Amino acid sequence: MPRRLVSELAAHTGEPVRIAGWLHRRRELSHVTFLIVRDRSGLGQVVITEAQKARWASDLLPETVIAVSGRCVASRQAPGGAELHEPDIEVLAAPAEAPPIELWRPQLSASLPVRLDLAPLALRHLRERAIFEIAAATVAGFRSTLVGLGFTEIQTPKIVGSATESGANVFALDYFGRPAYLAQSPQFYKQTMVGVFERVFETGPVFRAEPHDTPRHLSEYVSLDAEMGFIEDMHDVMDVLREAIAGMVEAIETGAREAVEVLELELPRVRTSIPEVDFADAQALISADTGETLEGEPDLAPAHERWLGEWAVREHGSELVFVTGYPMSKRPFYTQPHPTRPASSNSFDLLFRGLELVTGGQRLNRYDDYLTALNVRGEDPAAYTSYLQAFRYGMPPHGGFAIGLERFVARLTDAQNIRATTLFPRDLNRLAP
Amino acid sequence: MPRRLVSELAAHTGEPVRIAGWLHRRRELSHVTFLIVRDRSGLGQVVITEAQKARWASDLLPETVIAVSGRCVASRQAPGGAELHEPDIEVLAAPAEAPPIELWRPQLSASLPVRLDLAPLALRHLRERAIFEIAAATVAGFRSTLVGLGFTEIQTPKIVGSATESGANVFALDYFGRPAYLAQSPQFYKQTMVGVFERVFETGPVFRAEPHDTPRHLSEYVSLDAEMGFIEDMHDVMDVLREAIAGMVEAIETGAREAVEVLELELPRVRTSIPEVDFADAQALISADTGETLEGEPDLAPAHERWLGEWAVREHGSELVFVTGYPMSKRPFYTQPHPTRPASSNSFDLLFRGLELVTGGQRLNRYDDYLTALNVRGEDPAAYTSYLQAFRYGMPPHGGFAIGLERFVARLTDAQNIRATTLFPRDLNRLAP
Repeated sequence: MPRRLVSELAAHTGEPVRIAGWLHRRRELSHVTFLIVRDRSGLGQVVITEAQKARWASDLLPETVIAVSGRCVASRQAPGGAELHEPDIEVLAAPAEAPPIELWRPQLSASLPVRLDLAPLALRHLRERAIFEIAAATVAGFRSTLVGLGFTEIQTPKIVGSATESGANVFALDYFGRPAYLAQSPQFYKQTMVGVFERVFETGPVFRAEPHDTPRHLSEYVSLDAEMGFIEDMHDVMDVLREAIAGMVEAIETGAREAVEVLELELPRVRTSIPEVDFADAQALISADTGETLEGEPDLAPAHERWLGEWAVREHGSELVFVTGYPMSKRPFYTQPHPTRPASSNSFDLLFRGLELVTGGQRLNRYDDYLTALNVRGEDPAAYTSYLQAFRYGMPPHGGFAIGLERFVARLTDAQNIRATTLFPRDLNRLAP
Repeated sequence: MPRRLVSELAAHTGEPVRIAGWLHRRRELSHVTFLIVRDRSGLGQVVITEAQKARWASDLLPETVIAVSGRCVASRQAPGGAELHEPDIEVLAAPAEAPPIELWRPQLSASLPVRLDLAPLALRHLRERAIFEIAAATVAGFRSTLVGLGFTEIQTPKIVGSATESGANVFALDYFGRPAYLAQSPQFYKQTMVGVFERVFETGPVFRAEPHDTPRHLSEYVSLDAEMGFIEDMHDVMDVLREAIAGMVEAIETGAREAVEVLELELPRVRTSIPEVDFADAQALISADTGETLEGEPDLAPAHERWLGEWAVREHGSELVFVTGYPMSKRPFYTQPHPTRPASSNSFDLLFRGLELVTGGQRLNRYDDYLTALNVRGEDPAAYTSYLQAFRYGMPPHGGFAIGLERFVARLTDAQNIRATTLFPRDLNRLAP
């Protein structure tokens, strides 16, 4: 008999049916025992009325892997509207011991560190697993949107020969006796590939040796990167980013519907046009409201981002807001300055629910501008030779952005710690599981 | 005027049209100059008849980034069947110097090492770029096939705390003063996630400190990994693998049609059933043909794989062939042995055009079997505690496979060196670009 998913039971009432999964929960009443079976589609109910079988089943540990054949019967009380009667139960794999956490409870009571230590087990919880179904749909939506806009997916190396992009917070490794580093981003490679494909994206790991133990920092995370050529200015990039975010939300709605229900998520409505506020104007707005002096501050503090998030909802009905024109001093050397205000950059952050989610902007594209920018920062262009090849041989005006996957899912699910939306987080202290 | 891709020209004859791209080639005849413009969609032709403009254009270096507005005219001689007349040409970015290689030639004459050193430039060649359009379509086809089969995409860490999976050929890094390693595969994590999602896949980098400088070895490559639970035996895994390969080929046909044409590829026909030969039977077949004594040899040599590739075409009309039942001695500890011949494994290789492309099999799923297998190999289960959690708390029969992306594309495009199908290869000597 072919295995059915528990979500298919209602379509097979009156038939003999076989399901398989984990023993999620057992409820013993005086004359009947219910087994709740969990599979990848959800929960299904098995009803045992035979006393001998019920006694046998009372020895089964939670998380026992079982296959159950029985008669499928419609039932209003059962999850999904049908259940299995007169079951034959086969044990496929017995746990070595009872799990130390109760997966059937609506919420795991264990603390985050305990859950992370027990990740192979804790992630089986319906709410935990739903978070990563959201993540999977997010990445799928990012990719399909960009492919639809003519982008080509690329795979660039994570082991790099120099730590030039920022220098700080980089992991060093022993590469056949030579020093090498883990890439902090695919920035240089994705720009280079604009010269080949015009529009590229990559979804992959990036590595930051973050010496901070905070709820926002990971030393490895997934970056959704895009870069595009032949732009007029950064607004072309912001338009594509808007479409990407809308595509991600739509993919979650269609591809992870049950996960949205399990987590009772309120998905954002991505407006046709996301409001945009200039950095200096944003500072003025915040100052006017809070009385703080912000003039000359080169960046926004977390509290200011939260303020802007609330302002965007209040004034524009949008949970997303662009901040543009950040000071050049806080942006990397490849950033294009504002054409008339050279201390400001043609770059942006996208805030989502009061937190920076995306950074992007227009890049320099002329070879001479790179030489000048590196010289101004006291850097030797010789250290950038292979990167600069792209510009040496003709590069169009271009720009791009990077979205932190775990951060996006954290904002969506209102997770207070980025580790809760990372399957196996890596941080200052954590290297396992 | 909105920019059009050169592939769209034929749809706009008689209209004023604007295109943009790289000056791919210039041909100067006595009364007319042709500029060939390359963009992400292909090549387009611009016709200059005005003497002064032709003189001006004769100074443009190859790879100059230009935007051209003109009247679109049907032309049988032009690529795509239309060309731009009376052009207005704007230089968006001038190269610093003429490129050292001629990108317009049908084949790059430079050697592979030179091409790799000049990757940001050399990858602009139509044939080079087509290879990576094939790669992008391959990955997309892999993912969409598996999503269609109920698989969930996962993202697992590349920095790991122990080098337990094989010990050898692992890159070590300094993790905040502690030793850590780069993951050689997502094997342990994808198995663990079978306990959560039943069916998972991952497309991401893996790292091997390969001390071999051969045309087949890279120290970083892209692995297309899948793992699935509730299987009867490894044939369920092989069926999914067959579907994945068929989906990859189909995605190339539909999503990278021009690249297939540029490279004049002969795509394989993936048969409804891929022929399968037992390892010992394969050895007997080869021995009978070549006179070699192979009994007791634990693996197939490259020449034997080639022999089997030719045999499968000859006997079964298939460019793909499964070899099953490899000796346990050559398989990792988590491999499920054959139920009646314990020296043989429930594992397989998939050969494609005479080269191993995929390795896979059924894994152990019972906790006690893991303890036994580790003890037999003289390993301490304590080193595997977090991995073993998954089995400690109930895991179904499961199996999976891993496809090397660059290797697949190399076989498809008949590349003699895996570096030719890697954007920025990493090997014993190469760390840049």
